Amino acid sequence: MKAYKIYVGGEFLQTEKTFDVINSYDNSTVAQSWMADQYHLEKAITAAQAVEDDLKNMPSYKRYDILMQIVDGLEEKREEIGRTIALEAAKPLVYALGEVDRSIQTFKIAAEESKRLPKEYMSLDWTAAGSGKEGIVKYFPIGLVAGIAPFNFPLNLAVHKIAPAIAAGCPIILKPSTNTPLACLALAEVIDKTDLPKGAISILPMDRQTGNQLVTDERFKLLSFTGSPQVGWKMKKDAGKKKVVLELGGNAGVIIGDSADLDQAVKKCVVGGFAYAGQVCIHTQRIYVHENIFDAFTEKFVESVKQFVPGAPDNPKTQMTTMIDEYNAQRVEEWVNDAVEQGAVILAGGNREAAYFEPTILTNTRKEMKVCALEIFGPVVTLEKFSDFDQAIHEINYGDFGLQAGVFTNRIDEMNTAFNELEVGGVIINDVPTFRVDHMPYGGVKESGLGREGVKYAMFDMLEPKILVKNM
Amino acid sequence: MKAYKIYVGGEFLQTEKTFDVINSYDNSTVAQSWMADQYHLEKAITAAQAVEDDLKNMPSYKRYDILMQIVDGLEEKREEIGRTIALEAAKPLVYALGEVDRSIQTFKIAAEESKRLPKEYMSLDWTAAGSGKEGIVKYFPIGLVAGIAPFNFPLNLAVHKIAPAIAAGCPIILKPSTNTPLACLALAEVIDKTDLPKGAISILPMDRQTGNQLVTDERFKLLSFTGSPQVGWKMKKDAGKKKVVLELGGNAGVIIGDSADLDQAVKKCVVGGFAYAGQVCIHTQRIYVHENIFDAFTEKFVESVKQFVPGAPDNPKTQMTTMIDEYNAQRVEEWVNDAVEQGAVILAGGNREAAYFEPTILTNTRKEMKVCALEIFGPVVTLEKFSDFDQAIHEINYGDFGLQAGVFTNRIDEMNTAFNELEVGGVIINDVPTFRVDHMPYGGVKESGLGREGVKYAMFDMLEPKILVKNM
Amino acid sequence: MKAYKIYVGGEFLQTEKTFDVINSYDNSTVAQSWMADQYHLEKAITAAQAVEDDLKNMPSYKRYDILMQIVDGLEEKREEIGRTIALEAAKPLVYALGEVDRSIQTFKIAAEESKRLPKEYMSLDWTAAGSGKEGIVKYFPIGLVAGIAPFNFPLNLAVHKIAPAIAAGCPIILKPSTNTPLACLALAEVIDKTDLPKGAISILPMDRQTGNQLVTDERFKLLSFTGSPQVGWKMKKDAGKKKVVLELGGNAGVIIGDSADLDQAVKKCVVGGFAYAGQVCIHTQRIYVHENIFDAFTEKFVESVKQFVPGAPDNPKTQMTTMIDEYNAQRVEEWVNDAVEQGAVILAGGNREAAYFEPTILTNTRKEMKVCALEIFGPVVTLEKFSDFDQAIHEINYGDFGLQAGVFTNRIDEMNTAFNELEVGGVIINDVPTFRVDHMPYGGVKESGLGREGVKYAMFDMLEPKILVKNM
Amino acid sequence: MKAYKIYVGGEFLQTEKTFDVINSYDNSTVAQSWMADQYHLEKAITAAQAVEDDLKNMPSYKRYDILMQIVDGLEEKREEIGRTIALEAAKPLVYALGEVDRSIQTFKIAAEESKRLPKEYMSLDWTAAGSGKEGIVKYFPIGLVAGIAPFNFPLNLAVHKIAPAIAAGCPIILKPSTNTPLACLALAEVIDKTDLPKGAISILPMDRQTGNQLVTDERFKLLSFTGSPQVGWKMKKDAGKKKVVLELGGNAGVIIGDSADLDQAVKKCVVGGFAYAGQVCIHTQRIYVHENIFDAFTEKFVESVKQFVPGAPDNPKTQMTTMIDEYNAQRVEEWVNDAVEQGAVILAGGNREAAYFEPTILTNTRKEMKVCALEIFGPVVTLEKFSDFDQAIHEINYGDFGLQAGVFTNRIDEMNTAFNELEVGGVIINDVPTFRVDHMPYGGVKESGLGREGVKYAMFDMLEPKILVKNM
Repeated sequence: MKAYKIYVGGEFLQTEKTFDVINSYDNSTVAQSWMADQYHLEKAITAAQAVEDDLKNMPSYKRYDILMQIVDGLEEKREEIGRTIALEAAKPLVYALGEVDRSIQTFKIAAEESKRLPKEYMSLDWTAAGSGKEGIVKYFPIGLVAGIAPFNFPLNLAVHKIAPAIAAGCPIILKPSTNTPLACLALAEVIDKTDLPKGAISILPMDRQTGNQLVTDERFKLLSFTGSPQVGWKMKKDAGKKKVVLELGGNAGVIIGDSADLDQAVKKCVVGGFAYAGQVCIHTQRIYVHENIFDAFTEKFVESVKQFVPGAPDNPKTQMTTMIDEYNAQRVEEWVNDAVEQGAVILAGGNREAAYFEPTILTNTRKEMKVCALEIFGPVVTLEKFSDFDQAIHEINYGDFGLQAGVFTNRIDEMNTAFNELEVGGVIINDVPTFRVDHMPYGGVKESGLGREGVKYAMFDMLEPKILVKNM
Repeated sequence: MKAYKIYVGGEFLQTEKTFDVINSYDNSTVAQSWMADQYHLEKAITAAQAVEDDLKNMPSYKRYDILMQIVDGLEEKREEIGRTIALEAAKPLVYALGEVDRSIQTFKIAAEESKRLPKEYMSLDWTAAGSGKEGIVKYFPIGLVAGIAPFNFPLNLAVHKIAPAIAAGCPIILKPSTNTPLACLALAEVIDKTDLPKGAISILPMDRQTGNQLVTDERFKLLSFTGSPQVGWKMKKDAGKKKVVLELGGNAGVIIGDSADLDQAVKKCVVGGFAYAGQVCIHTQRIYVHENIFDAFTEKFVESVKQFVPGAPDNPKTQMTTMIDEYNAQRVEEWVNDAVEQGAVILAGGNREAAYFEPTILTNTRKEMKVCALEIFGPVVTLEKFSDFDQAIHEINYGDFGLQAGVFTNRIDEMNTAFNELEVGGVIINDVPTFRVDHMPYGGVKESGLGREGVKYAMFDMLEPKILVKNM
Repeated sequence: MKAYKIYVGGEFLQTEKTFDVINSYDNSTVAQSWMADQYHLEKAITAAQAVEDDLKNMPSYKRYDILMQIVDGLEEKREEIGRTIALEAAKPLVYALGEVDRSIQTFKIAAEESKRLPKEYMSLDWTAAGSGKEGIVKYFPIGLVAGIAPFNFPLNLAVHKIAPAIAAGCPIILKPSTNTPLACLALAEVIDKTDLPKGAISILPMDRQTGNQLVTDERFKLLSFTGSPQVGWKMKKDAGKKKVVLELGGNAGVIIGDSADLDQAVKKCVVGGFAYAGQVCIHTQRIYVHENIFDAFTEKFVESVKQFVPGAPDNPKTQMTTMIDEYNAQRVEEWVNDAVEQGAVILAGGNREAAYFEPTILTNTRKEMKVCALEIFGPVVTLEKFSDFDQAIHEINYGDFGLQAGVFTNRIDEMNTAFNELEVGGVIINDVPTFRVDHMPYGGVKESGLGREGVKYAMFDMLEPKILVKNM
Repeated sequence: MKAYKIYVGGEFLQTEKTFDVINSYDNSTVAQSWMADQYHLEKAITAAQAVEDDLKNMPSYKRYDILMQIVDGLEEKREEIGRTIALEAAKPLVYALGEVDRSIQTFKIAAEESKRLPKEYMSLDWTAAGSGKEGIVKYFPIGLVAGIAPFNFPLNLAVHKIAPAIAAGCPIILKPSTNTPLACLALAEVIDKTDLPKGAISILPMDRQTGNQLVTDERFKLLSFTGSPQVGWKMKKDAGKKKVVLELGGNAGVIIGDSADLDQAVKKCVVGGFAYAGQVCIHTQRIYVHENIFDAFTEKFVESVKQFVPGAPDNPKTQMTTMIDEYNAQRVEEWVNDAVEQGAVILAGGNREAAYFEPTILTNTRKEMKVCALEIFGPVVTLEKFSDFDQAIHEINYGDFGLQAGVFTNRIDEMNTAFNELEVGGVIINDVPTFRVDHMPYGGVKESGLGREGVKYAMFDMLEPKILVKNM
């Protein structure tokens, strides 16, 4: 069986504590890895601090070269890493390969942004006090970054912390999910072959206790966390003096107006609702359709969804497979049953078999039900009709979250209203909320997060401005 | 009778050649002024060059203060200057006062932009050759500017050259139209009372021959001309080494789609078509209405236009009065008759009395007719129907000009098509092409011009970048 | 005796708890004011939330007008408010008037920035996934802001929270220092007369317990605190989900190289070291002089400082007066005595009389002494020599703080080294660290703070980006 | 013998008129090529216009991919194209390979900039007239570009027109120098293999008469010329309505202050003065050295230069070889003799053998001499002393040109003065004026040019802004 060593300050190490990574589709063991403990974390911190000055003073062409070396390395191992993601995360191969491609793109963006760090040049002579003076503002690396990544995009959501860190000149210690650490450790192998100074990056699977130190240790200057709201907001409290960026979840919704292109809307909603079994932060969880087209939409949508056939993640034809583990499939089942007991109607799916939960469409829901109000993080979609656009906006805004929202419409006034009124980080016109490209600002409001990622936005939080007040 | 001296290098002078400024409404003499000749121009150039270094090195707070002193001065004389514009340009008082307000706004924008000259700070270490080097780019005043302004906005179109010149730190010699030099000379009186170094601005009415020197003299570093296409393009050829900005005319059109708000469209088109008797570069000359709403639009539009009653320009109730002179009214009459002979139908207006030409609506026109293809610069509008949006785009794009276009629509796809396909400098959604605010980029493509105005855009052409390559 | 009512949601109110504001120079009572309690805070929050939508949707020209109305109001009351600051803060009148002028400038900058909120427009088609899509990013007001301001600049440090809040469209509740609430309440009177919707601003002197709610209440979306490090960092922990900006103190230092202009350096250091008795966040606390010019500098500096004569704050000739209270003067005395006991030598000053502490220069200090390592916030300066520039850099970087630093030099290499190596928010060349103009980014690193102020920088934290992904 | 076909609208063609490309070192024929005539130009124009819409609407990821395909193609053919440049231009191989590397870098920059076309998003509601409106400004390709490139950098100066054109979405027809067309035609072979639509690029060696059509034909929307001042300024006059960018020559100078690092200065000046026999627009022609170090500098400089040994261009050890042709070597000889007759003294070199002119240092020159006042474009440097920095600035500014200037100094005040006072496009601190990296803004003032190149700056002139005024 393959084994992935952890990457500590430039060395690949085994520790005393091993663990297995499981493919939830067939409960097979994908590979073995090791847990870091406090000793390894300390080693990683020391190694990181030793290269801080090197990273800070590295000319941009070297940062660019290193990041493009990673691009090349990932392109070479695309198939292998794609397959690893498929197995460790139970992600259909086509999506897993797509994730590798996106990570390549994320590194490429970072390579380009490393040459374009924010810089300002300003006149200061707006009053006599500043006469003869000018300011130039340069952004310096903030220092050591702690990154914590979730299981659902084992590679790309880690890369959204690692790539900006390299581009910004910060060392980073990243904790992958212990469910899915393999792609990240494979990335470490790629990075290790580049000119990046050893120690700049460590990839450490670790237990909760060791992980806590990422939050509390004052030697970290930024904590960048992607994961669940409860955990994230708790971390903000415990983070001491460091900056905190939180990319949390939501219950994203989409509005389909009566001027929409129906076929396009159906097609996009199928993907938004069920790709990777809905285990996506911007999963299309709630669909509101204008009453004029509700029936037509429903018919086509239900039909499309019913054709899904479960399959093994590493089968290139598989569209949907098991959830990350049976525990979560049970949780989803419970929430669906709960909704049905309170009056919701199942239009498709609703059944579970071990870790597999059928793609499920509910209607007759109420906004207080768990399937609406909480983040389901599973292959379940609610489908409701509306008569008035403002009412649909109001529904989407209900609740604690605000990540992204989609609006299918050909009306300028609806687009304007949606942009002005929806309480989210992103409003996607004529696409599902699940849309993301890797250089756009991405992140939520309300309980969905704090700050933005998207390479240059992530870099911004890894940089500290310093002004030089100089003579003209 | 009031007399306005010309403003030469900080002095108010009379010359040997006097001339009268006429109110075309009643042929009364508004005031007297004087013509500059080569001697005065030389004097102005010498005075301008003497203060170039002062202007270049003036801290931004002083530029700001001077520009805000002008704002205060204009606010104080708002009524007086408004009345002057009304009389010299035969512009209804309400529009004349509006023009003063816009000039105040233009100076205010320039005051703010003077503190925000473009500035760049960039890393140069994208290759080893640039290692250890950085660039800071500062924009320095280009030197002496020649400005030539037209009659139709005697104040604000001159201000769109003067205000940016002060903000950028360039001296400027401005030639107003000899039809309408008074508001500009009144502005000179305001400016003369500020802290602006004498010589930085001269306002010189002049004959064609002297004016030619503004074009050919190599001591001017920029020629900024607003006027007719034939004159403008000829100047570009004769301008020697200097930069040239041309703000010329057009035959702007508007498309009214069937999703438009009809009443809003009618109301805006009445203003766009007939304000200041259509003597506006972005006059709404051609209206294309979707066949579904063509009849309804036509009825309301014709009805609105028929209510216009001519009046004296200085009567606050007057909506429309005479054109700038009888010669131009005759020209418009000829073009309209020409069109009618070729099959056009008059829906309203069509008659002339001395310099007054009735607000006129034509239909059944063809795009080759002068009233469509050339810039009419008079109170005439053509009104045609279309069935297909792309066809309407095609109509608008026909011909030599491309200044701005309006599109009334609530459809996102129509907005996108219009923005991508219309060959103009500005696409105005749900308003007429006549829309302009003073800080937006403004200018045409094709034969409608070269470059952009709009304060910071005008300033950009008055500045020359210089890079400092420095050690990091 | 004059009494200043508190300003609660648009109303000037008295409460049950009154308190006196004292002039520390003669212990006279300047005026009376009132304490807000939880009831008033609740009233202020409710009023603020009621106008959130109005503020968000207010066109920029209205925001501009309101902010310029405040400018006009302050200009009218300049003398009165200046005198109020002088008395409540024991600040020499000339500095107090300077503070009013700076507040006027801060509002003016905010007026201009309100029209220039950050906005982005980007292509999203960097991969096929984004084909046909573009992004526009608009920054929306974050919601209700809690501001906490210190005693030392009773007006301008509050204005640095209030003006950006108005510009950004956020309501704000501001707690002034209870030592110096009067200028702020006078500002409230100015604001109350403008078109700003009532409730957008409340000014509430309050006790610690009520103040805590500004930190913990989740209805506030941003806490902006200016004050001491201990209090500030504790607040970050307790702030829940809201964003936190901290402007804390430091022990700012200056390096005087042997290529420096000596007279300029002496003159600036006198002001930086003793203006407002050193009660300034960027007070010039530590001076390092190159050995070649150390003696010459010392002689001139000591001489200059010895000429200070204490006077009443409202006397226009007074350069220095009492500290904010006797307690603090005693603290400073203690620290100085402590240093002397450990070997420091007094070159000037060193004596206390009630709340007055003489302008004091120490030498022979060591960097661990309180007078070096902590923020003295009093009229005490340490003066040491260095032989090697890097060593001086090292001295400045020693310790927990990093706000600003000054460097007097005519050497490019020293300037570059200083900018790259000094661990501060701002490096001021040929001026003291005490230099600040109100539109520059201002704030510290290490324990000196989190985030930046300086109008547009402060606004940035009051805004939340939202992307509209649209069709091209 | 190798033959290079011309590249016409996507086809490689022979014409009726062939010509030989000569290696001036040994008068051998490098290769054969063909002249385009009006027929081929017409064919190229037609092909270009046919793909204008495709280019305009091409998503940025495709532009990026095409440009990176060119990068890959050039990397593959680096040695071959380097050798071609060496032979056709008589350029030492090491510099010829360096030029290929820079062209690769130029395409790489263009690839990145193609995703970052300028874009603006602005509020328009600065007055009530703009209430409810916003502007988004997008930059569209201007249309067909005519490019004319010189002999001295046969590849990279053509690439500085071609790469931005592809990035901006404009078709381009490029005329290389008929002395050195081969590298450009080799590039055409690389481009032909990419996904760039055929017709987007044509490379046409042509006679003067056909070349004139590039200037006068109104179907070209931009003329971008790199070459001699006389030709360039004449073209501006004849260019009709199109935009014109001129990258012309100069007599660049450098100031070496007494705080400079002498060895660094000598080393840089040797390269700046004699690399490629001074046939560089920013050739270091004039050196002004502070009197304190003049003798020391002179000794080291003369010594370095005397070690030059002529060699064949394709010998990797050659530092300097023949000039482009004997005619130019004779011209340089004449100017030098002329100077000597007027009192100049030769410190090194001064002799000619066929097309080879020795690296030559003159002193005792006067600024009116041809070797000072005109662009020598040969391996000749003048060396003079100064006592006062301002005087040195004055010397540099003397004359008609203003491309770049170098200043060796460690003084902040000298750096500031130089930046503020030198009338050039670029001031290079601690390096020669010959410094250029390919993404910096590059271009001259006075008679040295109009506009800037440097990829994104070149792109700016290939783009036309269009504003969409939309509802908020």
